[in-house]
Amino acid sequence: MNSPVYEPRKLKPGTLRVIPIGGLGEIGRNMTTYEIDGKILIVDCGVLFPEENQPGVDLILPDFTPIKDRLDDVVGVVLTHGHEDHIGAVPYLLRLRQDIPLIGSTLTLALVEAKLKEHRISPYTLTVHEGEKEQLGPFDLEFIAVNHSIPDALAVAIKTEAGVVLHTGDFKMDQLPLDDRITDLRAFARLGEAGVDLFLPDSTNADVPGFTAPERDIGPVLAAVIAKAPRRVIVASFSSHVHRVQQVLDAAHANGRRVAFMGRSMVRNMTIAAELGYLRVPEGVLIDGKKAADLPDNKIVYMSTGSQGEPMAVLARMANLEHQIEIGKGDTVILASSLIPGNENAVYRVINGLMKLGANVVHKGNAKVHVSGHASAGELLYVYNILRPKNVLPVHGEYRHLIANQELAILSGVPESHTFIGEDGTVIDLKDGHAEVVGQLDLGYVYVDGSTVGEITDADLKDRRILSEEGFVSIFVAVDVQTGRTIVGPEIQARGFAEDEKVFDDVKPMIIKALYQAAENGTRDTHSYSQVIRRTVGRWVNSTHRRRPMIVPVVIEA
Amino acid sequence: MNSPVYEPRKLKPGTLRVIPIGGLGEIGRNMTTYEIDGKILIVDCGVLFPEENQPGVDLILPDFTPIKDRLDDVVGVVLTHGHEDHIGAVPYLLRLRQDIPLIGSTLTLALVEAKLKEHRISPYTLTVHEGEKEQLGPFDLEFIAVNHSIPDALAVAIKTEAGVVLHTGDFKMDQLPLDDRITDLRAFARLGEAGVDLFLPDSTNADVPGFTAPERDIGPVLAAVIAKAPRRVIVASFSSHVHRVQQVLDAAHANGRRVAFMGRSMVRNMTIAAELGYLRVPEGVLIDGKKAADLPDNKIVYMSTGSQGEPMAVLARMANLEHQIEIGKGDTVILASSLIPGNENAVYRVINGLMKLGANVVHKGNAKVHVSGHASAGELLYVYNILRPKNVLPVHGEYRHLIANQELAILSGVPESHTFIGEDGTVIDLKDGHAEVVGQLDLGYVYVDGSTVGEITDADLKDRRILSEEGFVSIFVAVDVQTGRTIVGPEIQARGFAEDEKVFDDVKPMIIKALYQAAENGTRDTHSYSQVIRRTVGRWVNSTHRRRPMIVPVVIEA
Repeated sequence: MNSPVYEPRKLKPGTLRVIPIGGLGEIGRNMTTYEIDGKILIVDCGVLFPEENQPGVDLILPDFTPIKDRLDDVVGVVLTHGHEDHIGAVPYLLRLRQDIPLIGSTLTLALVEAKLKEHRISPYTLTVHEGEKEQLGPFDLEFIAVNHSIPDALAVAIKTEAGVVLHTGDFKMDQLPLDDRITDLRAFARLGEAGVDLFLPDSTNADVPGFTAPERDIGPVLAAVIAKAPRRVIVASFSSHVHRVQQVLDAAHANGRRVAFMGRSMVRNMTIAAELGYLRVPEGVLIDGKKAADLPDNKIVYMSTGSQGEPMAVLARMANLEHQIEIGKGDTVILASSLIPGNENAVYRVINGLMKLGANVVHKGNAKVHVSGHASAGELLYVYNILRPKNVLPVHGEYRHLIANQELAILSGVPESHTFIGEDGTVIDLKDGHAEVVGQLDLGYVYVDGSTVGEITDADLKDRRILSEEGFVSIFVAVDVQTGRTIVGPEIQARGFAEDEKVFDDVKPMIIKALYQAAENGTRDTHSYSQVIRRTVGRWVNSTHRRRPMIVPVVIEA
Repeated sequence: MNSPVYEPRKLKPGTLRVIPIGGLGEIGRNMTTYEIDGKILIVDCGVLFPEENQPGVDLILPDFTPIKDRLDDVVGVVLTHGHEDHIGAVPYLLRLRQDIPLIGSTLTLALVEAKLKEHRISPYTLTVHEGEKEQLGPFDLEFIAVNHSIPDALAVAIKTEAGVVLHTGDFKMDQLPLDDRITDLRAFARLGEAGVDLFLPDSTNADVPGFTAPERDIGPVLAAVIAKAPRRVIVASFSSHVHRVQQVLDAAHANGRRVAFMGRSMVRNMTIAAELGYLRVPEGVLIDGKKAADLPDNKIVYMSTGSQGEPMAVLARMANLEHQIEIGKGDTVILASSLIPGNENAVYRVINGLMKLGANVVHKGNAKVHVSGHASAGELLYVYNILRPKNVLPVHGEYRHLIANQELAILSGVPESHTFIGEDGTVIDLKDGHAEVVGQLDLGYVYVDGSTVGEITDADLKDRRILSEEGFVSIFVAVDVQTGRTIVGPEIQARGFAEDEKVFDDVKPMIIKALYQAAENGTRDTHSYSQVIRRTVGRWVNSTHRRRPMIVPVVIEA
């Protein structure tokens, strides 16, 4: 992060303190804390997925440092919707205090409970619906329907004696959504008339001009592709995108095909969504994946995960012929999904692989099979105009998205001085309609790596990047520290770099000689001998191979 | 690659054999060989840039195996244009035989000669112009002007007794290019009327519907952005894109600004282009980069490299404040370039960094500052209709591009059986208008890594990927092989994984015990003791950390 770190002043009674813990400067690990009069409300607790320069990392969590000594003051966690970047870190938070209440809609809580079950945590929950109000300590909460790429998403208005905050969560403004549940602009208007002191809007698509197309535009495209498909159809999308799956079910049904869910998360989420009534399954359309193979090829649609080219997901395994469904000529694969930046190579690898097997591949590059879940600039302007917030803190975006959202706020009439470009750990105090940045906490990335949380550091990742680009050379010697005489070794091992060990025959006598010379110059300790080896091997590798592998000397006293 | 490998039959006299050595199944390392009556003509010899799953690799070369024992039969290398993916591997080919003649246009040869100079190679060259013909052994060559994102590009018609081949190189059909040098459809028409037996067209944009927009559309956008810019302007683009740079020069000049070239390849290429008259530099507009700082901020445009987020290029260094030009509020940065798939995260990192420093960043996502250099589907149809080739081998593309180009050929009336989806190493024989696949060679990736060529293998890269995701643990012991008693060690080192060595205190006694037990079970050699250590440590790491680092045991006889 860039801003200088400084401690905020002590929080005065009656002032609301807002700290975005995650989600500013990144798309992911969304989490915001609200504190007043000694009590803390958390909104969302998500994960961030690692980029290619964070190899081996499974997940990245928000840095819980600001609350980890204050857990008993937390009155609850409001979860705006059930996406991983909003609920994925809940298990890690509840490991710290298991009885923190979780507040959210029916579907959101069902998804987080399924996730917590895998972590063997049984949470305290409070189900809320749009239009309802709840009081948690000093926080009066009002929940407002918003439309997004998962059903049952909620914005939350947070009313305290310090003022009114509107936290949208992710939203867009599809005016004809599949479930008729639109973003409740009447509620926004009512709040706006009463006065919104601080507004935290979704920035994901703030730099996209115009309006996000309606989800229902996709249905006819899916139906047309399925109608023309001569053999099997495989549709890949996100496993939480209930409305996308709904449209696949409907298009399959209209074409006399049955649908089999493939992939653990797809099966789990759609089972939940169907049980709770969010997914309306046409009578008899579903079929078990194993039984589907008995149907004629032109009577089946497989609904799978893996639209981002994830190597272990169903779609990539199909592309590599590592799945029981063997793709062949005449099969149709539809990637009804976005292409998240950074995943391009992986996705194109899967597309090329499927095409080589003979499949016809339909994706957002050649057909209208995806719309975004986030409000574009045009929609955000509607919201700014209907709310007329006093202060704005754009959230949920990389820096470029936050800036684009700030510009929209300013264009709509919010004074620039009332807009805030924050980052994770920015501390903003609100009282009597006045918002102010009062501190910047030093928050880091918390890496989940195997069974460890927070043990892998940025230094480890730097080592991993060096290892990946250059490999390593390890050198073992047992040395007589008094004379520098090599008693055992040098034994040299290398990986990712010139793995034929004969390469090192030239440098071994150089190491032995260098150790002797070091002793003559007074060296007597293993650490200094290690440095001598590091220098000797490093210079040799650089001059002979023009490479800089990691050099790992091990010197013990013989 | 996927297709089964099989040896082609012996080539008969009077038959032309075509082998795409690189560029099929990938965008890069384009190279094709043509052989008839014992003589070989090469068209292009480029490099491929590595993807994220090829860490540390500098470049990827075509696999020269099919010609490396036939170098004396090579009559020359035709270079269609001066892009790295067409000329970048020439130095590595000439290392094998330095006097292979290079044939190309004035600019193409100037760029390849500058590159060869860095490799201390002085080549034999033959400069050709559009409309000219040359005979090289059994090959009658005709060179035809094509329009691309670098000036002076040529297609080549290859006439032999076996038939006529048209090899386009990269091209598009801008009808109003900056240099008025259009793709010569009259020549294509003439060739088509006489009969083209085999056509090898550029597939890069075959899956893009419609027509590529004209390069000159960009000029007014650049001029408008520069006119409004309050302070400095930095434009980043490809260092070989003479026409893009021309438009920057013109737009700067029209706004009373001077231009400084930044970055070694930009300076080198634009110096060559200006000297040869491809870049028309308005009087007095250029200024040395060092003197530019003395100008008022609103009088300068920096023209730089780094539009793909390359970490060592000018733009990324500016974004990280590692460049003498310190970006600040009011500066404008224009990325007048494509966004090559796989580079998204790197480019967005640079954009976010520049914006954090206060810059206004203009890129193809928010302004029309880039057009492609390749013909879209609409343009390719014109070419198919004007040529009416007997046989088609789409080249220059990933599988999905080749398939899209094949579909266009079929739509335009080429029988499907006369279209060929090849891959690197596919062997096609042509005679009397009949083309046929007669073999599939087993060609690999040749990695340039530091000063080594072809030494790094796919196994090394697999090790690097494991190292990057999991790190490694190395274990040294000196053991009495008769008793299994550990005399020295275990010394354990780890990187990229739990670098605190105390973590390993638990496993050390387990190793010592396992070695004893192995000896009791009859183990007497160091290799078997190594296996014991690998198993012991592997199981322990997996059960305690749920990780699978690379485990590197070193056992020596004490």
